[in-house]
Amino acid sequence: MIKSQLYKLVTREFKPKDTIIDVNGVRIGGKEIIVLAGPCAVESEEQTIQIAKEIKKFGAKILRGGAIKPRTSPYSFQGLGEEGLKILAKARKITKIPIVTEVMDTSDIQLVCEYADILQVGSRNAQNFSLLKKLGKCNKPVLLKRGMSSTLEEFLSAAEYILNEGNPNVILCERGIRTFETATRNTLDLSIVPLIKQSTHLPIIVDPSHWGTGLRNLIAPMSKAAIAAGADGLLIEVHNNPEVAKCDGQQSLNFVEFQHLMQEIKIVAKAVGRYL
Amino acid sequence: MIKSQLYKLVTREFKPKDTIIDVNGVRIGGKEIIVLAGPCAVESEEQTIQIAKEIKKFGAKILRGGAIKPRTSPYSFQGLGEEGLKILAKARKITKIPIVTEVMDTSDIQLVCEYADILQVGSRNAQNFSLLKKLGKCNKPVLLKRGMSSTLEEFLSAAEYILNEGNPNVILCERGIRTFETATRNTLDLSIVPLIKQSTHLPIIVDPSHWGTGLRNLIAPMSKAAIAAGADGLLIEVHNNPEVAKCDGQQSLNFVEFQHLMQEIKIVAKAVGRYL
Amino acid sequence: MIKSQLYKLVTREFKPKDTIIDVNGVRIGGKEIIVLAGPCAVESEEQTIQIAKEIKKFGAKILRGGAIKPRTSPYSFQGLGEEGLKILAKARKITKIPIVTEVMDTSDIQLVCEYADILQVGSRNAQNFSLLKKLGKCNKPVLLKRGMSSTLEEFLSAAEYILNEGNPNVILCERGIRTFETATRNTLDLSIVPLIKQSTHLPIIVDPSHWGTGLRNLIAPMSKAAIAAGADGLLIEVHNNPEVAKCDGQQSLNFVEFQHLMQEIKIVAKAVGRYL
Amino acid sequence: MIKSQLYKLVTREFKPKDTIIDVNGVRIGGKEIIVLAGPCAVESEEQTIQIAKEIKKFGAKILRGGAIKPRTSPYSFQGLGEEGLKILAKARKITKIPIVTEVMDTSDIQLVCEYADILQVGSRNAQNFSLLKKLGKCNKPVLLKRGMSSTLEEFLSAAEYILNEGNPNVILCERGIRTFETATRNTLDLSIVPLIKQSTHLPIIVDPSHWGTGLRNLIAPMSKAAIAAGADGLLIEVHNNPEVAKCDGQQSLNFVEFQHLMQEIKIVAKAVGRYL
Repeated sequence: MIKSQLYKLVTREFKPKDTIIDVNGVRIGGKEIIVLAGPCAVESEEQTIQIAKEIKKFGAKILRGGAIKPRTSPYSFQGLGEEGLKILAKARKITKIPIVTEVMDTSDIQLVCEYADILQVGSRNAQNFSLLKKLGKCNKPVLLKRGMSSTLEEFLSAAEYILNEGNPNVILCERGIRTFETATRNTLDLSIVPLIKQSTHLPIIVDPSHWGTGLRNLIAPMSKAAIAAGADGLLIEVHNNPEVAKCDGQQSLNFVEFQHLMQEIKIVAKAVGRYL
Repeated sequence: MIKSQLYKLVTREFKPKDTIIDVNGVRIGGKEIIVLAGPCAVESEEQTIQIAKEIKKFGAKILRGGAIKPRTSPYSFQGLGEEGLKILAKARKITKIPIVTEVMDTSDIQLVCEYADILQVGSRNAQNFSLLKKLGKCNKPVLLKRGMSSTLEEFLSAAEYILNEGNPNVILCERGIRTFETATRNTLDLSIVPLIKQSTHLPIIVDPSHWGTGLRNLIAPMSKAAIAAGADGLLIEVHNNPEVAKCDGQQSLNFVEFQHLMQEIKIVAKAVGRYL
Repeated sequence: MIKSQLYKLVTREFKPKDTIIDVNGVRIGGKEIIVLAGPCAVESEEQTIQIAKEIKKFGAKILRGGAIKPRTSPYSFQGLGEEGLKILAKARKITKIPIVTEVMDTSDIQLVCEYADILQVGSRNAQNFSLLKKLGKCNKPVLLKRGMSSTLEEFLSAAEYILNEGNPNVILCERGIRTFETATRNTLDLSIVPLIKQSTHLPIIVDPSHWGTGLRNLIAPMSKAAIAAGADGLLIEVHNNPEVAKCDGQQSLNFVEFQHLMQEIKIVAKAVGRYL
Repeated sequence: MIKSQLYKLVTREFKPKDTIIDVNGVRIGGKEIIVLAGPCAVESEEQTIQIAKEIKKFGAKILRGGAIKPRTSPYSFQGLGEEGLKILAKARKITKIPIVTEVMDTSDIQLVCEYADILQVGSRNAQNFSLLKKLGKCNKPVLLKRGMSSTLEEFLSAAEYILNEGNPNVILCERGIRTFETATRNTLDLSIVPLIKQSTHLPIIVDPSHWGTGLRNLIAPMSKAAIAAGADGLLIEVHNNPEVAKCDGQQSLNFVEFQHLMQEIKIVAKAVGRYL
């Protein structure tokens, strides 16, 4: 068990029992493995609704999709903004599944809250403490990604900022850290999954997407590994046509690949006493 | 020369001549080495004014001091807020030197702008693109710290966000990166100084403070090394009484140490064709 | 598929079919998951024989144990040397299972070859090219650990040194890499497992032991994750009395823990189409 | 001051006074900055003698050159072996300056000892403890490079292996560590220079060569920075014709560049109370 002076509310010492977060009936942190799937960026209504229907059909419980996008370069596609949020809400209305989307700035929180069921904090904002504090005053669950160079202590301290302001519903998300290895864009640190399960009562999911060009076939084995390590869910990029996606196409699964993935992880989930 | 699709305005190809940023007569990016010094956090009026007078006496040209502090834990001292900004402004009035202080959130920009001469972006916000975009619309220079795991490309792309919105006055700042080494809290990457001098026209300064407990005596040798590598300035933490500082005391110099440092770096500056 | 100018013989392009290495009837690289288990260091005949019998009983197929130990400090226990090798041979005679032990230097190869069935190269010697070349002339399989900062390219190039000298029997082993994270001593990089499965025909096993004090309970979840990611086997430290072990006691399983581990991984192996 | 259970003889507590190593009259670790220069690999007698004469003319005190080369790939040029050692000895006879060359394996020590004045241990063998122990029994100084992922503790422990066997003459060498940054091949960690000066009495030099293609112009600024940080010397790759060098040409200086470098570092050395 990791001890620290930096946080308290997130620890198992403070709250021994697992936190289970209920999002319109979808329970994250229980025995069921929850898959959140969808496009990196919302591109159009037609695309989003099609993807939402397909991922639901294959067992995903929550639709993900970026409307406000943090991009390394100012010249990359920055998302559709509020139009994208409206499209997500429409997709929810049709498919009846909750939606998660990113919030990048305190000034966006109110707007995103009007549409989203879960607010996502990206890895580049993992220590944006102003944002975390304000999200602590929201009544929506927060999906908090680990920073690219966040230690376990820093990751949990970031969650503590949210809990400390009154919002107990934080879903942690491992998405790969920065290391010397260049064969992959990031190194997925699955050992943080059991470490988090020991240290904190919060649910932890894994986003196994950020490998870089040509490595899409790492997604299935690493998804299975994440579940075997004890993750409570997966965040998967799915696109109707990955080759022409406006963002991260090379790491998105198409519908057939996603269907296969869901079948495979169902079996692994069962092997570790979970279900899908 | 590093080429990239991610940025354009920051490159030497786009603008071959060095950018020199004039802050109330203090010119950053020219032959003169500029030292920015002051406390990690503004604690009181008396303390801040005393420090401002002392650092000015020994040759510092700009006062630094945190009023809004990004801290890993919500339970650490978070700064005095607007009261701290007012104290900084008072210290400026008395000493006639410009002040730099951190801005953490888009909603703070207007307030901080009323007081500060330079707006600092901390390493945890190095890829807070909403903040960077809004700072690009300010008419104040921005001191942009490198993220703890930012590559050169990402660092320059972050600066590009600011330039692309119309603000050409960005001062880059290396402050140490995350590596496996645990003897120091960060690894100061001085090789980025000449790399940046080749790649971009923007000035680059070095903050050699973040070593961790008991390693204050690394500040002098690494300050000299930074200047020898080609840095345009230094950001130094100075405190009237480091032992009781509310933040980062173990890495702050006292006045005597700061005086010695200034004498030593003056000689090195001269050896590389610069002055102080 | 990773392409490189640095190696050829290890690639799937050169040899599409999986290499299966037969060690006295134990086949590594096939459908069966092979568990290699035993003490970090051979301490006595009684201890080693007891451990060998127990691990065999619970399904381990190969006995591991260090006789010549690479230790960070010259003042740490350096192993029993040839006496340790003789003890291992005795344990093999009694239990009829093959033994793997480390070789640290070209001058030890002949001696270790007389006793061991598989020669292990530790992570600190992962780019000791003189050692790799000489092992390429041996007729015993080599278990090659990844260096603490070896990229995939360097890892495969190290294996190429052995194959290029005529020895085709190399078992690759991931054991954790150096990163900024300090909650664990190393970061187990499981994504290299599917990457290696795509790039090379050689078997890959995982050593999930090097976590540091107090984190023994990471071994089971990460063992399951390794198998779910596609590993061909596991290298597990087992000790009759971890509390008093001369080396790495805090990361060794006792017999009861090992028995549970074997039961759990059997179920995961089945879930991914393998068996134990 | 860094404390550790891992080493003793290398510490300032054990021996407060600086160790100065005398190599045929060249004193490493004193007030004089010592430059060791020469080709990455010895390619021919003519080349080596020409380089030796030139580097001596510009102020280098020791000739470096690889005869036995550790290369990532078995298909890269592996060095001339004993023929290379003979060429180095001839160059020494003509120029009267000592030579340093790498030893890769315990079985090479006797041979290399016959020719070299200083035995170099490369970063890939930085924790080859068998090699370190045997070098501890030699009566020649050892130039020990830091491993690519060696912490300060591990670096000093490696030196302790040599001292503990009776050889007190170890020259430490920082050459860059593995980090996430890809703009350079390694990150030169100059902060280890003052850390080592505080922790140990052994001399520390810096090898600022391993930047990767197209970044040769980092060598001069980082050499100056190394001296400003307190290094006792520099290891510089110099080649008569870098464009056609058999190894590391892109990071070797030609004679004109080397002459300029020597002039520049002379001035910085003086600025920090040293001379060249």
